[in-house]
Amino acid sequence: MLKIALAQVNFQVGNFESNTQKIIDRIQTAKANNTGLIVFSELSVCGYPARDFLTYPHFIQQCYKSISLIAEQCQGIAAIVGAPSPSKVIAGKNIYNSAYLLSNGKVQHIINKSLLPTYDVFDEYRYFESNTNDFSCIEINGVKIAVTVCEDLWDVDMDKMYKQNPMDELVKQSPDVMINIAASPFNYEHREDRLRVFKLNCEKYNLPLLYVNQTGAQTELIFDGGSLALDNKGEIIQELNYFEEQVAYFEFENAVIKHLQPNNSSTHSTIKIARIHDALVLGIKDYFAKLGFTKAILGLSGGIDSALVAVLAVRALGSANVKVLLLPSQYSSEHSINDALALANTLNIEYEIVNITQANTAVEATLANAFSGLAFNVTEENIQARLRGLLLMAHSNKFGYVLLNTTNKSEAAVGYGTLYGDMCGGLAVLGDVYKTECYELSNYINKDAVVIPTNSIEKPPSAELRPNQKDSDSLPDYDVLDTILRAYIEHCNSPEDIIAKGHNAALVNRVLGMVNINEFKRFQMAPVLRVSPKAFGMGRRMPLEGKYKYV
Amino acid sequence: MLKIALAQVNFQVGNFESNTQKIIDRIQTAKANNTGLIVFSELSVCGYPARDFLTYPHFIQQCYKSISLIAEQCQGIAAIVGAPSPSKVIAGKNIYNSAYLLSNGKVQHIINKSLLPTYDVFDEYRYFESNTNDFSCIEINGVKIAVTVCEDLWDVDMDKMYKQNPMDELVKQSPDVMINIAASPFNYEHREDRLRVFKLNCEKYNLPLLYVNQTGAQTELIFDGGSLALDNKGEIIQELNYFEEQVAYFEFENAVIKHLQPNNSSTHSTIKIARIHDALVLGIKDYFAKLGFTKAILGLSGGIDSALVAVLAVRALGSANVKVLLLPSQYSSEHSINDALALANTLNIEYEIVNITQANTAVEATLANAFSGLAFNVTEENIQARLRGLLLMAHSNKFGYVLLNTTNKSEAAVGYGTLYGDMCGGLAVLGDVYKTECYELSNYINKDAVVIPTNSIEKPPSAELRPNQKDSDSLPDYDVLDTILRAYIEHCNSPEDIIAKGHNAALVNRVLGMVNINEFKRFQMAPVLRVSPKAFGMGRRMPLEGKYKYV
Repeated sequence: MLKIALAQVNFQVGNFESNTQKIIDRIQTAKANNTGLIVFSELSVCGYPARDFLTYPHFIQQCYKSISLIAEQCQGIAAIVGAPSPSKVIAGKNIYNSAYLLSNGKVQHIINKSLLPTYDVFDEYRYFESNTNDFSCIEINGVKIAVTVCEDLWDVDMDKMYKQNPMDELVKQSPDVMINIAASPFNYEHREDRLRVFKLNCEKYNLPLLYVNQTGAQTELIFDGGSLALDNKGEIIQELNYFEEQVAYFEFENAVIKHLQPNNSSTHSTIKIARIHDALVLGIKDYFAKLGFTKAILGLSGGIDSALVAVLAVRALGSANVKVLLLPSQYSSEHSINDALALANTLNIEYEIVNITQANTAVEATLANAFSGLAFNVTEENIQARLRGLLLMAHSNKFGYVLLNTTNKSEAAVGYGTLYGDMCGGLAVLGDVYKTECYELSNYINKDAVVIPTNSIEKPPSAELRPNQKDSDSLPDYDVLDTILRAYIEHCNSPEDIIAKGHNAALVNRVLGMVNINEFKRFQMAPVLRVSPKAFGMGRRMPLEGKYKYV
Repeated sequence: MLKIALAQVNFQVGNFESNTQKIIDRIQTAKANNTGLIVFSELSVCGYPARDFLTYPHFIQQCYKSISLIAEQCQGIAAIVGAPSPSKVIAGKNIYNSAYLLSNGKVQHIINKSLLPTYDVFDEYRYFESNTNDFSCIEINGVKIAVTVCEDLWDVDMDKMYKQNPMDELVKQSPDVMINIAASPFNYEHREDRLRVFKLNCEKYNLPLLYVNQTGAQTELIFDGGSLALDNKGEIIQELNYFEEQVAYFEFENAVIKHLQPNNSSTHSTIKIARIHDALVLGIKDYFAKLGFTKAILGLSGGIDSALVAVLAVRALGSANVKVLLLPSQYSSEHSINDALALANTLNIEYEIVNITQANTAVEATLANAFSGLAFNVTEENIQARLRGLLLMAHSNKFGYVLLNTTNKSEAAVGYGTLYGDMCGGLAVLGDVYKTECYELSNYINKDAVVIPTNSIEKPPSAELRPNQKDSDSLPDYDVLDTILRAYIEHCNSPEDIIAKGHNAALVNRVLGMVNINEFKRFQMAPVLRVSPKAFGMGRRMPLEGKYKYV
């Protein structure tokens, strides 16, 4: 019998002191609970993704030092810990992405990752060499374990992305159980993917699986945890909580995994929008915690997007730590102010009304000579948006608030926003949430009681930068727009593909052209909290001046 | 005897129509000149780097269509053209980065790239499968040619980055000559690297080499051309021009390459700062040309950085297409205005003086209530910088100018700049040029006659955002700062390494802390023209909230 602990932890990239301490604390508790093996997630000592810190030799040395410190604690208990390890051959990159087996105070074995995800948000071949020839199971208390690292179990689909399958090698040694350590970021359909992929592995190899994922957000990437114990049919024995730290204990005996607190149920939700909600709250919370900030500010327009961000910020940071500015101009409607005030009151957050008219008049006077005789156009609209950005940033600078950006994914996609205006902010909370999903999210938040004013949800969206402006003046209806955008951005459809689904050809070409042309705006956008399988940012790297437009 | 043309071309990413036409035009001219083989650069049909367009199936289909169109033109002449090609096996990624041999109207052979650079600005394993088992030379008019693609020849150093060397395989077939097609971006020491690496290849295999590189800028990346013919000792037979298109003709007979216009001399410069100058001018020129813009605007402060950008913009776009705004406040010195005016007159460019005081007063009045009783600090400095950004962007929006950013690399590194203020702009012209290099560049520009006012170069740098402010109030001297920055950014030195070189420990820790903490500003910075081996942007991917600071 082997007692195994799965330790789902929220690490911070490069915070060696805290990460090492978190690991050692859990080892000591597990040891006190007579645990034989405790398992941590991928690259746990340095956090994931450490990105180009991995090219710094002294950063790698810090990882090795952490492993030594942790190994010293492994007396009477074994631990599997993720960290880089040095390649012993000259040819190839210098480090592997590895799982260390630590026991008796030292490193007993190192398992190197074979399949290096290098797509979407992943850059692993940028840093690591792939293991192609060293496959051996480890043995603890007579239990033979096939250890793999994250992607190593994921190449199960027809169109294989890799030429080798490490589990096919390991299974030749007749392991009793599989363990996979991971840093696998959330998206709203990732849980189903994960369960499907792991079930295929369990069935194929007729083995149970223990899976440890990291939790916590690292700027754009939100790690959901959801660590797992599956039986040899891939059925769930236990699923750990989502979006929070947890240690769960199991017994492995006679090829069967048993959960030791069988009445616990996981916090996972099957509702897409609930998952997005929880991910965004954690994304905000960890962005602030890990950067050392506590207070957020945003502009509250009375519309749905800023209302959503205010609610999410309050849920992440507490109402005492969120301030909003209402920044009306002569084009702002009465209801906008009222809707914003209603929300501020419901949320019990500090607010201030700062009319931008005086500053706007002064700017227009400053430009009067240069712009003499020219009609009001998008320039003057942008000036208003930029003055709001400027006033929000002034509060941010003066009082130490972080400005939250409220741009949604539909707007970011088509460039419906002002660079250095409403695109200001340190974190784009809704940058991966389409407008139609913003409505779903608002309704989800209002499911038990009205938090976001009904009027903010129901009125036609407007930037209120000129009289009677509506989003629908220049954009198609959001349900049509979002369908086209999702086909292009998430599914890499061609314009012909999308038109064939029944959309107007001119509209499709116009929308795709807007997406491509506005790459320059997204280039300068704040980090986007990723909740979908394809978010703007590090996971979507498009040429800025590529001539491949549809307009 | 085989007559060979090397076609060094400025392609545009995704501009299939133009790229294909450029290739066909050169094939037809070469054919009229009785050429047996014409060689184009890596991924020539789609341009390099096409980035995530390569994940779009219809984009790849467009590449295949271009190859068909080009193949049709190859009657009585052979061509080597770069394009993706489909992988024939299910395992692995779906496409290769390939060199197509076209002749007799069709594809005769496809050579797939083996070594896929995935570091710095390169992401090739993100898109392409590596060729590990298909190595065969091609034969044209009895000449046996070992064709490789860019990186395939570059793994020559002691610490090998790859496990296989494709040229080691090809040489077994006793080729007569090597041809390498490339898209190899400029940095100020790249020419020496290239000559060194190719000399090692020529000597190792005792073979001459023909090398074709693309020219032209693609947003951040500037491709310098500099295509080459080298003999079997690696000595230069002919070097093509830098930073411009060119077709050069050669004869290959009895193992010897002969250049057919032997009196041509290449435009290369051995002076680092001259190279940077030429690269930046091309970078600006192509950014505008490929995005379809003609006119630039920038704020001229009287300081050295904006003066430099104005000169470079005029050299790239012409004086009729550059406008400057002088944006004085109450803190601006008389000499700043005069120095800026002197430059505008020397460059014969349009200028306008727009005093920001009125707008600044209105903004401060708008904030008076909120900021009541609080002292002037960086907040008020940022307001001035942001008002300047706002006024420049208003001109940009109203008249269709692209705003050029004037932030230098030293400032970008330590965050000495205002986000949404002086960090506004579509292109960061000097973002990879340290302040000390800005001085070198100014002196280079002034080498024959004073263009940049001597006063702009000689006065102590100041942001002029409060009375008597100087950069040296908050930063170390730029020669010290830049030395520390280069050690950390270019050479990945640890703080201990840098201190060991004789720098003050507290200063080193403070500077490195500033670099890490200001990642959030650079995240939202405009694309930076890359001229060094390690530029901010796509080639340096650092975590934004990584806790690995030295403060």
